[in-house]
Amino acid sequence: MSDVKQYMSEVGKRARAAARAMSRADTAAKDVALNAIADAIEAQKASLLEANEKDMQAGAADGLDDALLDRLELNDERIAGMAEGLRQIAALPDPVGEISDMSYRPSGIQVGKMRVPLGVLGIIYESRPNVTADAAGLALKSGNAAILRGGSEALHSNQAIAHCVHAGLEKAGLPADAVQVIETIDRAAVGQLITMPEYVDVIIPRGGKSLIERISAEARVPVIKHLHGVCHVYLDDEADLDKAIQIAFNAKTHRYGVCNAMETLLVAEGIAEQVLPELSGMYLEKGVELRGCETTCRLVSAAKPATDEDWDTEYLAPILSIRVVKDVDEAIDHVNRHSSNHTEAIVTENYTRSRRFLREIDSSSVMVNASTRFADGFEYGLGAEIGISTDKFHVRGPVGLEGLTSQKYVVLGSGQIRQ
Amino acid sequence: MSDVKQYMSEVGKRARAAARAMSRADTAAKDVALNAIADAIEAQKASLLEANEKDMQAGAADGLDDALLDRLELNDERIAGMAEGLRQIAALPDPVGEISDMSYRPSGIQVGKMRVPLGVLGIIYESRPNVTADAAGLALKSGNAAILRGGSEALHSNQAIAHCVHAGLEKAGLPADAVQVIETIDRAAVGQLITMPEYVDVIIPRGGKSLIERISAEARVPVIKHLHGVCHVYLDDEADLDKAIQIAFNAKTHRYGVCNAMETLLVAEGIAEQVLPELSGMYLEKGVELRGCETTCRLVSAAKPATDEDWDTEYLAPILSIRVVKDVDEAIDHVNRHSSNHTEAIVTENYTRSRRFLREIDSSSVMVNASTRFADGFEYGLGAEIGISTDKFHVRGPVGLEGLTSQKYVVLGSGQIRQ
Repeated sequence: MSDVKQYMSEVGKRARAAARAMSRADTAAKDVALNAIADAIEAQKASLLEANEKDMQAGAADGLDDALLDRLELNDERIAGMAEGLRQIAALPDPVGEISDMSYRPSGIQVGKMRVPLGVLGIIYESRPNVTADAAGLALKSGNAAILRGGSEALHSNQAIAHCVHAGLEKAGLPADAVQVIETIDRAAVGQLITMPEYVDVIIPRGGKSLIERISAEARVPVIKHLHGVCHVYLDDEADLDKAIQIAFNAKTHRYGVCNAMETLLVAEGIAEQVLPELSGMYLEKGVELRGCETTCRLVSAAKPATDEDWDTEYLAPILSIRVVKDVDEAIDHVNRHSSNHTEAIVTENYTRSRRFLREIDSSSVMVNASTRFADGFEYGLGAEIGISTDKFHVRGPVGLEGLTSQKYVVLGSGQIRQ
Repeated sequence: MSDVKQYMSEVGKRARAAARAMSRADTAAKDVALNAIADAIEAQKASLLEANEKDMQAGAADGLDDALLDRLELNDERIAGMAEGLRQIAALPDPVGEISDMSYRPSGIQVGKMRVPLGVLGIIYESRPNVTADAAGLALKSGNAAILRGGSEALHSNQAIAHCVHAGLEKAGLPADAVQVIETIDRAAVGQLITMPEYVDVIIPRGGKSLIERISAEARVPVIKHLHGVCHVYLDDEADLDKAIQIAFNAKTHRYGVCNAMETLLVAEGIAEQVLPELSGMYLEKGVELRGCETTCRLVSAAKPATDEDWDTEYLAPILSIRVVKDVDEAIDHVNRHSSNHTEAIVTENYTRSRRFLREIDSSSVMVNASTRFADGFEYGLGAEIGISTDKFHVRGPVGLEGLTSQKYVVLGSGQIRQ
């Protein structure tokens, strides 16, 4: 057995043992741990910044680009944000042990469901060290154990945060192994982590599309993931034009580098002439490059012709593809062909079309008269999210504490036997 | 591309296209189809029996054992049962499109969840042709398309049933490709079916442990499964002794060859002398072979010593292993070490121990004072079940229509944009 294999298998064994203890842990103990981790992160600020400085210097020396270095950086605000996030998770209701739908059956037994943790989560992410605190907090509150594998460029930062996590777990009398940060930068560790069904119950990768595709292809356990977000907004010809323009502008320009930003705008031909010139002006003023279909290019002289590839591209940048469609049918057809099943919105005042869009669009979030930017665990009231799932199996949409649990059946009888 | 690969890939493409139509199908159309399939099965009884006779003769010639031949056989009663099952599924509420948990958020958007089909189900099973009708019915009602791969020994029977299914789909104006029965007996078809994530969303294998283990190991899509059922009943020393004896006897002897039958009985040492002699007498009279721990063998002279292997064995036969344990802690410990996460029951009048057992036993069904034989979709009120899941991902316990669906988020706004 290779060293990495043996190391990962020991990490897995310890996680499995810790998961058992975590599944039975009292709500109070978990909340004590979460608040103690938050306290430790604040108290250890100096050493977190010092560890991060090491990563930042190594990153600069290795030639990481500015965007990566920005994500890697810890500062006062981000450290305060980690602590605040953990306290918010502590304040959320404990999902574990929640019993629902208890009802009596004709046999006399009473049947319902009890919420249970998934077991051991393997979480794989890049650069941003604050994910270490978020992921640890969500795993802990949902009664799971977690094995965290951050980017090698953030190793010192992640270890410093892990130190705070362990201090908090210890204070609450919970096993330190409930959250383990992988200490090797050997890439083979990821290969091991995703192929140990005996120790790891689910993998949650966060990062670029190619990382997630590779993990999904090679994993021997379920993966909660979204690959990318090619989100659409459709402006129907019965839209309130003011709402249409506001939503289409916000969905693209509120933030560019996020998965719930709009990448393709669909406009009903009935309102294209009324809407596109004004909207295009707003986009261009904001510095958004426009790529359009033939009709769009005719109406908007600044738009370049879109290629076939554009309709499937997540720009994550100030670029927008625009297509004029005949009606809601053509819009739904375009979306279901090109969407990444992340988030799509229709702007309309038409009752029937709003219902059809909601029902027929096969995406994890479908919206009427709202910006796609609302597709987010906090905005949906989940309190926090570990990511977004564009799959249908287990969980779909923003994944909060509930998505990290399952439900078992509980049966309360008074001596019933099968006849 | 091999012939089988090409054939399966065409089946997959057709299933994917049909799944889109099925996901939008009206409740009424699906119910019309289900009732029409039931009618066709009754009307075509003669040709079903004729097709089945071919399979039975070929099976006998191939030397299939009596148990297999029994499962393969169709008769008047079983045909009536298939039709009745389909009509029951038609009468169940349609899960698709169900909207729940709509609530307003501080931003003004209203957020909730809508139930959606999973897409394409790949269902792999052995011998029993009635599974063809059950699985088609559950897939159809839940808005999914299904690719069915039955045992090669049941090919003619399954094709005759598929003929009825297609007649029903056609009558309702739904695509015949919504339910496809694999027409080749080439085993490579299964290998293809479980490795086409582009066409198949989930695999549901029903059959022996080795079939399911192989499918789980090789599948490239999620699998809903249970491997086996090593179910336990624990008789606590604060049990009502009459209930204890009735439940322990029923859980073992009501039916032997089922996954929710008890395979290991745990008895608290405080009541072992009161309970075991009487219970053993009942088992022995019924022809159940007893294998016990040292204490059990001392109290029950007819019991043979159990080996280590016995504690992990699903007998599916009139054999029972019995172990005397110190208390509920030792019982929970034994169960979590040896159980298959299927179904476990405690018999006790003690409030605290009942709560601990419910919380700490990590099985898909956990019961207090009821026979493990109740672990069943019908008994739980699901209306019908496609199988039982002992995993935690997606679904746990008996899997009905809800387990064949997912939930997407729906957002209703009135022009909201992110600030």
